[in-house]
Amino acid sequence: MSDLKKQILSAVEDDLQAIEQELVTNLTPHLALVRKVASHILFSGGKRLRPLLMVLAARICNYQGNYDKTFSTIFEYLHAATLLHDDLIDGARLRRGRLVAHSVWDNPTAVLVGDFLLARGLAIAAETGLPQVIKVIAHITEEMSQGEIHQLQRKKAFDLTEAEYMEIIRRKTAVLFQGACRISALLAEATPVMEAALADFGLHLGMAFQMADDLLDYTTDSAVLGKQVGADLKEGKLTLPVIHALANAENGVREEMIAVIGDPGFSTTQFEKLVQQLASLGGIDYTWRLAHQHIQKAKDALHLFPATETRQIMLDIADYALSRKL
Amino acid sequence: MSDLKKQILSAVEDDLQAIEQELVTNLTPHLALVRKVASHILFSGGKRLRPLLMVLAARICNYQGNYDKTFSTIFEYLHAATLLHDDLIDGARLRRGRLVAHSVWDNPTAVLVGDFLLARGLAIAAETGLPQVIKVIAHITEEMSQGEIHQLQRKKAFDLTEAEYMEIIRRKTAVLFQGACRISALLAEATPVMEAALADFGLHLGMAFQMADDLLDYTTDSAVLGKQVGADLKEGKLTLPVIHALANAENGVREEMIAVIGDPGFSTTQFEKLVQQLASLGGIDYTWRLAHQHIQKAKDALHLFPATETRQIMLDIADYALSRKL
Repeated sequence: MSDLKKQILSAVEDDLQAIEQELVTNLTPHLALVRKVASHILFSGGKRLRPLLMVLAARICNYQGNYDKTFSTIFEYLHAATLLHDDLIDGARLRRGRLVAHSVWDNPTAVLVGDFLLARGLAIAAETGLPQVIKVIAHITEEMSQGEIHQLQRKKAFDLTEAEYMEIIRRKTAVLFQGACRISALLAEATPVMEAALADFGLHLGMAFQMADDLLDYTTDSAVLGKQVGADLKEGKLTLPVIHALANAENGVREEMIAVIGDPGFSTTQFEKLVQQLASLGGIDYTWRLAHQHIQKAKDALHLFPATETRQIMLDIADYALSRKL
Repeated sequence: MSDLKKQILSAVEDDLQAIEQELVTNLTPHLALVRKVASHILFSGGKRLRPLLMVLAARICNYQGNYDKTFSTIFEYLHAATLLHDDLIDGARLRRGRLVAHSVWDNPTAVLVGDFLLARGLAIAAETGLPQVIKVIAHITEEMSQGEIHQLQRKKAFDLTEAEYMEIIRRKTAVLFQGACRISALLAEATPVMEAALADFGLHLGMAFQMADDLLDYTTDSAVLGKQVGADLKEGKLTLPVIHALANAENGVREEMIAVIGDPGFSTTQFEKLVQQLASLGGIDYTWRLAHQHIQKAKDALHLFPATETRQIMLDIADYALSRKL
């Protein structure tokens, strides 16, 4: 584990424990099967980044209430719901090194438990009693489903542009980070300026997080990743490293790359060559550079808050988003 | 068309037109594909019973605002979301005589557009700005997914009891009817007594509606039903006519029935014999009787409202729930 990760984990140990407890307590299904399937995805080594961000954002706004940890579960439940549906849609086999829920159980169960988790997240949002909070969360779920549909619709679309990629990852990933940070400001009755700053922090962190995630497919091996390397490509999912490389490739090379990408049965040798091409055409570096820019914007957004320990942890998490190996 | 249906339709013509318009206006997806898939399920001859009940319940509470039709879309969007997911789960091929969405497009698209419609319903609920309304709706979505999971989990369970069946249909169907009627009372700021009466009306109507729906599988032919007859049984879905008949069957007959039900490849002749057995063992009559009792309770719940035209339409709809052919 990196020093940065150790440092963050030690600073937020109590928060993470409290979040973990709330995730168990607030699940409240009627059926044992629902708890079992939901727990399979919820308690399988997730980082709890989204609820943690909410708790920290509440603290930086000087929130004095007792409900930050309870409401932070909304973001993990919504996240877990999308993972259940996405794994099914992507035909994934492994997540975090474990068999996915639709393989352990079946597709219908994964769909319906995903629906339950989505509903549960919104039900907890409703318990805030704050219409503004509920609106933000309902809107997030709309955006997320549309981001996923957009991505699905544009699988194997070799003309996918950078702008379209940005739109997809904003919806499917960044709006949830943004919401987690923004909701805290609403709960804490912080100023609109603080609310906007935290929303910016979450949005940019989320964008960078997804870009770093997309890079992992080309920079990490299977054992570390806990899933198949090259999985994005096998699903026809074009991410920024590929989009940028394709845009920079000369004719001939471009066609060669497309031939590999278009064939889900590509060999390890073909994949390794493709990764080299992505690198030499600048796709990897460019993606890192943009991710770094987003992290810088995220960190800049926190300037208006006093230099507390909480702010430092949030800045550290922003740096960690780029250094993580999985 | 029956006289009763004609009479209802003529009385609510303007309401239905307004609801139809709101269903188009409030969909607001970013992507053309989402509108296409959502429209396939939304605009395919649905009866709009749930939004209509909400509009009528608002009127009976003397609601004076302008938002009843807008908010009534919540119930149709949630309903459409569950249809998309249920058709997928059940492996259905036809709905209302048309190919289901997951056959026209694919499973991932059906899952994600279902998620979008669920989210859209909750987003519109959030726009009421009334935490109590939002709580009820979020709770409904939790209940519905759990009703479906319960049903899924107990497919081909020949020991399914009547009580368990009631619990399943309450969650998967009746809570949405109940919510549609109850929300109106909250919008109209009606008394708690009125709210409870409308909730009762919706609950019992929903229970009877599902029982009548389950009976259609044994009393109607494919052309009228718009889907395969015997579909419930082929999916291993045990409904009250079967549960009651199995409970009353002597050994030997019971085993014979179970052998047919347990084999999704049963022939038309086998199915017709089974239907005769359900009838002679009282399963059909018993289900009708219970459905009638629920309709009576639904109608009784409206006694406390003055005898207006609106009340009469609601009473007529209750009667129609049992007379409908599809």
